[in-house]
Amino acid sequence: MPKQNSVSRHIVLTSHPSRSGPKPIAINWGAADPMQRGPVIATLTKSAHRNVIGTHSGGYAVYRALAVASGSLQSDHIADLTNTSPTERIGPYPSWSVADKIVSLDPYGAIASEVFASYYEQGYDIRPTIAITKAHINMPELQEAIAKGRLQVDGKIMKPGGDLVVTKAAIEPVWYLPGLAKRFNITEGELRRALFEQTGGMFPELVTRSDLEVFLPPIGGLTVYIVGDLEAIADPNKPLAVRVHDECNGSDVFGSDICTCRPYLVHGIEVCVQTAQEGGAGVIVYCRKEGRALGEVTKFLVYNARKRQEGGDRADAYFERTECVAGVQDMRFQELMPDVLHWLGITRIDRMVSMSNMKFDAITQSGIEIVERIAIPDDLIPQDARVEIEAKKAAGYFTTGDVLDANSLADVKGRGLE
Amino acid sequence: MPKQNSVSRHIVLTSHPSRSGPKPIAINWGAADPMQRGPVIATLTKSAHRNVIGTHSGGYAVYRALAVASGSLQSDHIADLTNTSPTERIGPYPSWSVADKIVSLDPYGAIASEVFASYYEQGYDIRPTIAITKAHINMPELQEAIAKGRLQVDGKIMKPGGDLVVTKAAIEPVWYLPGLAKRFNITEGELRRALFEQTGGMFPELVTRSDLEVFLPPIGGLTVYIVGDLEAIADPNKPLAVRVHDECNGSDVFGSDICTCRPYLVHGIEVCVQTAQEGGAGVIVYCRKEGRALGEVTKFLVYNARKRQEGGDRADAYFERTECVAGVQDMRFQELMPDVLHWLGITRIDRMVSMSNMKFDAITQSGIEIVERIAIPDDLIPQDARVEIEAKKAAGYFTTGDVLDANSLADVKGRGLE
Repeated sequence: MPKQNSVSRHIVLTSHPSRSGPKPIAINWGAADPMQRGPVIATLTKSAHRNVIGTHSGGYAVYRALAVASGSLQSDHIADLTNTSPTERIGPYPSWSVADKIVSLDPYGAIASEVFASYYEQGYDIRPTIAITKAHINMPELQEAIAKGRLQVDGKIMKPGGDLVVTKAAIEPVWYLPGLAKRFNITEGELRRALFEQTGGMFPELVTRSDLEVFLPPIGGLTVYIVGDLEAIADPNKPLAVRVHDECNGSDVFGSDICTCRPYLVHGIEVCVQTAQEGGAGVIVYCRKEGRALGEVTKFLVYNARKRQEGGDRADAYFERTECVAGVQDMRFQELMPDVLHWLGITRIDRMVSMSNMKFDAITQSGIEIVERIAIPDDLIPQDARVEIEAKKAAGYFTTGDVLDANSLADVKGRGLE
Repeated sequence: MPKQNSVSRHIVLTSHPSRSGPKPIAINWGAADPMQRGPVIATLTKSAHRNVIGTHSGGYAVYRALAVASGSLQSDHIADLTNTSPTERIGPYPSWSVADKIVSLDPYGAIASEVFASYYEQGYDIRPTIAITKAHINMPELQEAIAKGRLQVDGKIMKPGGDLVVTKAAIEPVWYLPGLAKRFNITEGELRRALFEQTGGMFPELVTRSDLEVFLPPIGGLTVYIVGDLEAIADPNKPLAVRVHDECNGSDVFGSDICTCRPYLVHGIEVCVQTAQEGGAGVIVYCRKEGRALGEVTKFLVYNARKRQEGGDRADAYFERTECVAGVQDMRFQELMPDVLHWLGITRIDRMVSMSNMKFDAITQSGIEIVERIAIPDDLIPQDARVEIEAKKAAGYFTTGDVLDANSLADVKGRGLE
């Protein structure tokens, strides 16, 4: 029984690099050959095999721990991966072995059971950190786009009734700490220490195991939706549309009118479908970074502060309220976001469905060309979201329209709380 | 500069209860008077003040740590909470001080700055773990429900154009460990040890600080959407509709047709609006438990295994594939879910929009009466989701229709991968 397992051993508060005896399989991040790169092993059943800090499934590891604690899961359960392999092959691409190109996910995460087959045979418990499947999705707004003639049913990509055929990938975060530190221009030691201390003491191995360079943080990952020809994604001769979308549950699911998130997401999908139907491909990246990675509690606190401040919710004070509550305007760290685009082998984006200068800068600085930027169509902006969009444009977001000056910004006001 | 702060001190791998000197403010969970209960203090600026394990914002604490590491956030930033207080008052209700009724959230989380005002004056850094705001939401399906006459515009709850007026609350997880252990019939020591060891060594304070009984785990929390009269929620003379919905990004946002998640969520909102318009209230609880709290990578692996197994995706083998991959069918632990209903003061649910026997059992066993259960209308079930719904009905989900026998279950098949 799992409970017996878990109380029979001495509690080890943190581990230290082994001075003698077998060392875990090395991870040589960025190596071109996967066997040289080495597998990511985050198993909890054989601690000597572990070559990373943290474990799988992001924060859902806490639920797994509950399952073991409550006796509903055997702590030594090994995943039966029969029939789970990717429905479509993605990569390997040259970007997978360019040092520092990808530091926040494991490019081999989807094909681990294939490229590390020999380790599986030796009894290593290696889990995929990426899963790729196919799906049909159907959104009411896309049905409307068909009805209005903006989208065409072709029977292959877009089926009758508005069913859109997609390939989708779920990706867990896998952080190569030296690469992350370099991305932020800090030392690895500073990064490790802050990750440990500024989370309230999460994972002391961050400071005791400098030999383990890979960390699986308990944060949400991302999901990629691909429309059209997968081969077209990395083919510079085929058109590619991309939207990178950061989660906003209130709008994405419930259609809150204070922001443009769902309307812009849907527009991104529309552009992806059109581009796919021209023989190219479309890519939507959905990142679990609720409320600019500040979380939803902070987000709602900021909503109240915005709507109650003197003069009401207005574009000229849009960012200020977030900074009062959170200390920063944004914690999404777009510097890490291009990794998924490099995993997909993208070198050029013909239609980038985003106005964010932070996303644009991060993507182009990572070496990907952006040909055209597509703003949200004006008629998709909810009235109460004018505050957000005008504030962002004034702060450097892409637009083909006018940018308001300080006086005009103060006149763009949102609804009060009643 | 934050970086200097973080490297100037000795690294403490874990803390231990102080034998002498001032102890942190005690938390007497379940005490009727908030000052006797004590505030939840998870600050990282004054470690001597901390009276919990972990810190705020769930997994987003990792992004906060990145912000400090990269120098964009001062590690000693204190939130300016001006104007952030709840737009509506919820509670206190008698359930807030019944021992063991609420163990996974802090009932005082939204009104911390009010009930603990004296501590703020003394310089304690106390953050709300619940934020309450108002919003207008608009979903295409609700517009359609108005067009078809199933929903009425009343100008107050449902506005012209389909804008629905809601009060919403974001809630961070706050776990009272002795209460959690009791809920799962295990010892607190077993729970603490599993939470530490089965996450790969997260938070050694779980084992070294038995004096700290409250844990803020790095997992997603939940969001409550309330329609109608807030006073009606706890009033047994007013009708109440409830749907407790577990996150499914693929359906909730993108409309994947392999499950019934978004259609059932929307139907729940529809029932909530109708109930609110009858003078009652409707409550949607949205829980961040993607893929039955197994995470989306596992979910997609299971999709592939289901669709590729011998005989294809079929209702009689629906749960089996999850168990092969994850070791369990489900990790959502509905035992903790009723806490939010007790926070809202709910004692009776007139219309429970859910077929789940796990949710039903958890809610009724926690002392809340359920009068009527509402199944998803048959015409809202996507064709490919028949596998799920028939499997669930056969496993004990509520239905007013037929439950298939083993042979018939095997005949309910989903689409293949090609």
